[in-house]
Amino acid sequence: MIDNTINDTSRIKDARYLSKVIKADEAAALIPHKAQIGFSGFVGAGSPLYIPIAIANRAQKLHEAGQEYKISIYSGASTDVDLDGILAKANCVEFRTPFNTDPNMRGRINAGETRYLDVHLSSLAWQVECGYFGDMDFAVIEISGITEDGKLIPTTSVGNNQAWLNAAKKVILELNIHQPKELEGFHDIYVQAKPPFREPIPLKTARDRIGTPYMSVDFDKVVGVVLSSTEDRLNRFTPLDEVSIAIGDNVAKFFAAEEAAGRLPKGKLLPLQSGIGNVANAVLAALSKAGYKGLECYSEVIQDGMLDLVKDGTVDLASASALSLSPTAVEEFRKNVDFYKEHIILRPQEISNSPELVRRLGVVAMNGMLEADIYGNINSTNVMGTQMMNGIGGSGDFARNGYLSLFLTPSVAKGGAISAIVPFVSHIDHTEHDTMVVVTEYGYADLRGCSPRERAQKMIAIAHPDYRDMLQDYFDRACAQPKPGHTPHILSEALSWHDRFNKTGSMKK
Amino acid sequence: MIDNTINDTSRIKDARYLSKVIKADEAAALIPHKAQIGFSGFVGAGSPLYIPIAIANRAQKLHEAGQEYKISIYSGASTDVDLDGILAKANCVEFRTPFNTDPNMRGRINAGETRYLDVHLSSLAWQVECGYFGDMDFAVIEISGITEDGKLIPTTSVGNNQAWLNAAKKVILELNIHQPKELEGFHDIYVQAKPPFREPIPLKTARDRIGTPYMSVDFDKVVGVVLSSTEDRLNRFTPLDEVSIAIGDNVAKFFAAEEAAGRLPKGKLLPLQSGIGNVANAVLAALSKAGYKGLECYSEVIQDGMLDLVKDGTVDLASASALSLSPTAVEEFRKNVDFYKEHIILRPQEISNSPELVRRLGVVAMNGMLEADIYGNINSTNVMGTQMMNGIGGSGDFARNGYLSLFLTPSVAKGGAISAIVPFVSHIDHTEHDTMVVVTEYGYADLRGCSPRERAQKMIAIAHPDYRDMLQDYFDRACAQPKPGHTPHILSEALSWHDRFNKTGSMKK
Repeated sequence: MIDNTINDTSRIKDARYLSKVIKADEAAALIPHKAQIGFSGFVGAGSPLYIPIAIANRAQKLHEAGQEYKISIYSGASTDVDLDGILAKANCVEFRTPFNTDPNMRGRINAGETRYLDVHLSSLAWQVECGYFGDMDFAVIEISGITEDGKLIPTTSVGNNQAWLNAAKKVILELNIHQPKELEGFHDIYVQAKPPFREPIPLKTARDRIGTPYMSVDFDKVVGVVLSSTEDRLNRFTPLDEVSIAIGDNVAKFFAAEEAAGRLPKGKLLPLQSGIGNVANAVLAALSKAGYKGLECYSEVIQDGMLDLVKDGTVDLASASALSLSPTAVEEFRKNVDFYKEHIILRPQEISNSPELVRRLGVVAMNGMLEADIYGNINSTNVMGTQMMNGIGGSGDFARNGYLSLFLTPSVAKGGAISAIVPFVSHIDHTEHDTMVVVTEYGYADLRGCSPRERAQKMIAIAHPDYRDMLQDYFDRACAQPKPGHTPHILSEALSWHDRFNKTGSMKK
Repeated sequence: MIDNTINDTSRIKDARYLSKVIKADEAAALIPHKAQIGFSGFVGAGSPLYIPIAIANRAQKLHEAGQEYKISIYSGASTDVDLDGILAKANCVEFRTPFNTDPNMRGRINAGETRYLDVHLSSLAWQVECGYFGDMDFAVIEISGITEDGKLIPTTSVGNNQAWLNAAKKVILELNIHQPKELEGFHDIYVQAKPPFREPIPLKTARDRIGTPYMSVDFDKVVGVVLSSTEDRLNRFTPLDEVSIAIGDNVAKFFAAEEAAGRLPKGKLLPLQSGIGNVANAVLAALSKAGYKGLECYSEVIQDGMLDLVKDGTVDLASASALSLSPTAVEEFRKNVDFYKEHIILRPQEISNSPELVRRLGVVAMNGMLEADIYGNINSTNVMGTQMMNGIGGSGDFARNGYLSLFLTPSVAKGGAISAIVPFVSHIDHTEHDTMVVVTEYGYADLRGCSPRERAQKMIAIAHPDYRDMLQDYFDRACAQPKPGHTPHILSEALSWHDRFNKTGSMKK
């Protein structure tokens, strides 16, 4: 809901900007049909909310009057329900990229009503800057303040904000006075040139600062500053379930084995990237339980679980592009902000997810997935090969370039009707070349150095017991064919598990 | 064939090494059953030949005597028929990585007799160094000379040579006196540390030299120097056919459009990577025909076609990991060696294929493939999903990180029985997230910014006319299903084209 009574301009220290203050409706009125808009927002953190609501209202009125009104949305990653959700409900999104988790937007995408482009998070900014998508008309960026010399203070995410500020022809700022003032100084904004003028990124450890804490903008491009007061999307934790805990323990077991083999620094590991959600939290909890201290994270998002580990010393340094906290965690964060400032850095997603840096730092990548096949190919995005879930996000940036690349999943979904390990994945986002270790609650399959046939046996061993015989049967019959080849498959059966699920509601025979 | 009479030690300038000269058979005798060996060799260039022959002879004798004898082979990329071929014939290869083009080795791999690991070429060296494959017992490296201070002069490829010299417990050098002496100075050897000690790679343009022209080795690890005199694999050109010429012209047309749109520097493009073979040569010829001058290449291999372009000024600088020339081209190269030294640099494949550098330089990646599906997923490796052809090679390093990523293919294979564009690829090496442009002789499909449904129409438009209606029919019926989703597919039919080919010899109905 838009509160039009907010008039606290105390965070605008550069007086020139005072004359640009407008209401959300006025901002929306500036945005024409077919506008291409770069929004701030990364995993529900730091996205503007008043302006999207006003755009949705405007769209609704125009649609009721029989007029066309659709926009294209470029973001950091997923945004709040009040951005993707409300705009999807208003059916005013022609094109969406690079990542979405909102169910209403997902519905539009799967119905073919909103064109969706699922891009590696490290790549969108430079592709926009290099003109692969035409002109960006507007940047709509949430900020927490404007400094005396006209610099912008980011809020809880950096994402592609600076790239959009640079690329857009016009800029609208949403100054959210509810965001903690104390965020100032957490960010490290670094901008890369376009080829052929790119330079080495001078970051050598996860804790290096290579830029400035502020975003910059051409004052003349700013056509409005909207005052708002909103919370980031609530990001509540569900208690860890048994399956997630078992997966976390298996990851810790794998790390212990790698340390013992001399392939990971003892007690320190290498910088960790971990995804979002229950399994990722369980991994962090398992590392804490295992007694690690002073770890470094080079990741995308800091959630409540990570904040806990920073507090208890398990993690000494957490680098990410967004701080996606629950209201309780925000309070804790505010209370001990000086402490956290020594341990947290927020970066542009071109840097947090940079292939160059992920490989240089030797990041240990841990990502969730929908399904894997017996040869280690991974589907992260399309349920049953056709229905978009969220998107690839940053998983490819980390999995391809990481020192280690782990994929984590419960062995079954939908109460056992879906096996996460199948003969042939129905969509591939990460190929066999990029999958090193797959972890379920039944153990880990270390696929490094294994030929496809060897991988199959290891993958079957960590599948849910209900599906192991079916997988083994498929594999054995595939190998028994006259010319099984390097990657044995029975093509007429390869996708039959998914087909059966679609027809009967279960992959089981 | 081994010539045991070679005794010219004039290229051994460090006298300490004279006492280490042994015959190939003696070298082979040092290598035990189950040895893990890092060989030099990249696209048939710079691989040792006498020692592999001697190993094969030894294996044959041991096998005849009923004894086990198998080795594991790590290389740069593909090697000569006299390495992969002869060892495969002797059936003495337990494990092979990362790339192979030899038909005999391919047979062993597809029969499941040799375990094969298909790895991104940029990644193998560091994975070996970090211990992912256990100890490397031997490095067997072709050199063209030893300097007074004991440095090694590489031959026609750099590949993973320095990494193997560093990682192996023992080293055998094959000094090939047939390799041009003039190769000295062409190479630029640069070594990266392991995480967490990696530094930015200080290369900013394709023409930068960041290392030294020589490889280094711990003298005490060297257990033998074998003198040899052999030619690199003959790499003869077949004349360009009409289809390849049309593909090349379509690439040139695409570049012209990108220049016009301001997305590529006019007349200069950005550093080019191009694969191997007829289509790649046709692209180079088309660029020459289009009048480009002073281009830069940041690629893997320099073949005859590239040498021609360097000579005529189309290409000003060619950086690669190997010089894979025909005997005629070698003569030309020798005659004008001073000229070529100003225009050619040979690098380790960790550098030629570095994700960090490919993205920094903004490389334009052009790779061949086996098949693409209507949504832009690419199969580069497994024919009909099961039979390994060669391997992914460096295509993933370039396609993922390039400024532009093109995949090139004739629209049909096997006289029209196989369509290179299918409903669902039978194996995926490059996902939809990494495919920007697909080119056939019928045009180019620019998939950037397109949702899957839009991509399908563009892909169908460049398919062979014989298959367009079949593809359109599949796509239309997939979209007409009750819940088509983001990526419409009919799972029960998705792989039916491949299945039909296996059963009838043609994808046509």
